[in-house]
Amino acid sequence: MERTDINTLLEKTEAWILPELENIFDEKEREDVTVKAAMYSLMAGGKRLRPLMMHLTSEMLNADADKEADIKYFAATLEMLHTYSLIHDDLPGLDNDELRRGKPTCHMVYGEGIAILAGDLLLNKAMERMFAICEKNPGYIHASSMMAENAGIRGMLGGQSIDIASEDKEISLELLTELQEKKTGAFIEAAIVTPYYLYKNMTREESASDETAKDLRKLAYHIGLAFQIKDDILDVTSSSEVLGKSTGKDERDSKATFVTHLGLDGAKGRLDEEIKSIKTILDKLSASGFDTTDYETLTDFLVNRDR
Amino acid sequence: MERTDINTLLEKTEAWILPELENIFDEKEREDVTVKAAMYSLMAGGKRLRPLMMHLTSEMLNADADKEADIKYFAATLEMLHTYSLIHDDLPGLDNDELRRGKPTCHMVYGEGIAILAGDLLLNKAMERMFAICEKNPGYIHASSMMAENAGIRGMLGGQSIDIASEDKEISLELLTELQEKKTGAFIEAAIVTPYYLYKNMTREESASDETAKDLRKLAYHIGLAFQIKDDILDVTSSSEVLGKSTGKDERDSKATFVTHLGLDGAKGRLDEEIKSIKTILDKLSASGFDTTDYETLTDFLVNRDR
Repeated sequence: MERTDINTLLEKTEAWILPELENIFDEKEREDVTVKAAMYSLMAGGKRLRPLMMHLTSEMLNADADKEADIKYFAATLEMLHTYSLIHDDLPGLDNDELRRGKPTCHMVYGEGIAILAGDLLLNKAMERMFAICEKNPGYIHASSMMAENAGIRGMLGGQSIDIASEDKEISLELLTELQEKKTGAFIEAAIVTPYYLYKNMTREESASDETAKDLRKLAYHIGLAFQIKDDILDVTSSSEVLGKSTGKDERDSKATFVTHLGLDGAKGRLDEEIKSIKTILDKLSASGFDTTDYETLTDFLVNRDR
Repeated sequence: MERTDINTLLEKTEAWILPELENIFDEKEREDVTVKAAMYSLMAGGKRLRPLMMHLTSEMLNADADKEADIKYFAATLEMLHTYSLIHDDLPGLDNDELRRGKPTCHMVYGEGIAILAGDLLLNKAMERMFAICEKNPGYIHASSMMAENAGIRGMLGGQSIDIASEDKEISLELLTELQEKKTGAFIEAAIVTPYYLYKNMTREESASDETAKDLRKLAYHIGLAFQIKDDILDVTSSSEVLGKSTGKDERDSKATFVTHLGLDGAKGRLDEEIKSIKTILDKLSASGFDTTDYETLTDFLVNRDR
């Protein structure tokens, strides 16, 4: 089978997810200033990597049209959760960033108060959407529950909390790994695994014992780490023009990264290890009959990207 | 039947809800600084009016022990949502309040960044709790869905958004009423009606047509308005020592209130009307066999309180 290149995959994902994002709020709601601020950030671009992963899992499962529509609904929901976390993270009280993806951050455009509410709104609406679809299909409760957990203290928020608590402190490689596993890894797990839970209307018990679910969670773990290590490497090797954000920021903020811990070569070595683990799991899934070609393309992209 | 006085009701509610609040996070989670900040605000007191209302509906329904335990679980969940909204509302980017219930606000104690995350955490964890209990009892999905909506753009956040958009502007009595209906009314509705949805494992369709559900929603609407009008009256008539917060704040902030719109006497008249509507609905519920005595006590308290 001929491989689809990453740019085509990214373009397909963009076309797949945008109409869904545009219709999250109805016409009347879109007149509200907080909704406008939320939509500003939601539509501000980015690679849409999480929706891409959901799309890839959906295609790997050969989900039918109805199931795929529901997976898309959850992909938009996860993108909302990701965007809320960025809006709040950019606030003056946290990272105090004025630019995101080359555009002014939410609070720079709408003011701090509305940016706080816009983040709250995206988080709340994401949860509303999941409850609403569970009213129609109770088989989605566990998938929704896991997505909410991935956003909480055991996931993204837990990572943010470790991050803020360890500012200006030396942290161990172990804690750094936990931080990243939660802060960025939890949403990557949600992206890769949720479609499978939805596809199977899976309960908590089933998802704990299912072999494919376990493989997908492992895949997510290693992709998440590879993604973060690559980010840390790019922060010291790339130029800010290419990256679209300031480089060397981690060092100036004396932030612990995989590069500060392992050195540049050590980090590259660790990245290679993660890639090997990813390939092993993909081979196993492939042997079970899943078409993992596009996931291989994604993996190559994550390693070779220059931004 | 002898009436239980309001202080006894409030004390009973405190004893009912506190152990539930204390156990929201497990021991390990409570070591996290963001969890500590969230718990600080959650345990900082307040009248626990929303849990009280949930308790009253639960007792009015004669809920059995299992059902009552679940209602208590949701009461704690609503209190978490209420507390997150206060933490974020107090932030410098919004109301910039240093004191709440006579104690330093969350960001004064833990800093702005952690206070943002603590609010996010309470919101997220509230949703997690609802998904988790729905995994055990899918009959609770609609109740959870409504609670999430009451916290969103059609409820509390919608009210916050109108509030911030109308700062330093003249707003109509109609918009002021909508603002209050959403900002404070939506959680009062959740408090009064959710126990009934839980009690009946009610679906969206059932809750739309059920006569008692409709009465409870009307009751909530009028209690919410009465509560807010009384607040506005107290802001101009009470002293700050009694109120435990600064008075005359609305006027200094040139904030539209029921008093600025209707005058003090007009607001008192409007309050009387709301009380009449409340009594009418309580009489109807009473005639249907519900014991509404404690709700009458609550209503009297809401009108006669001096803080």
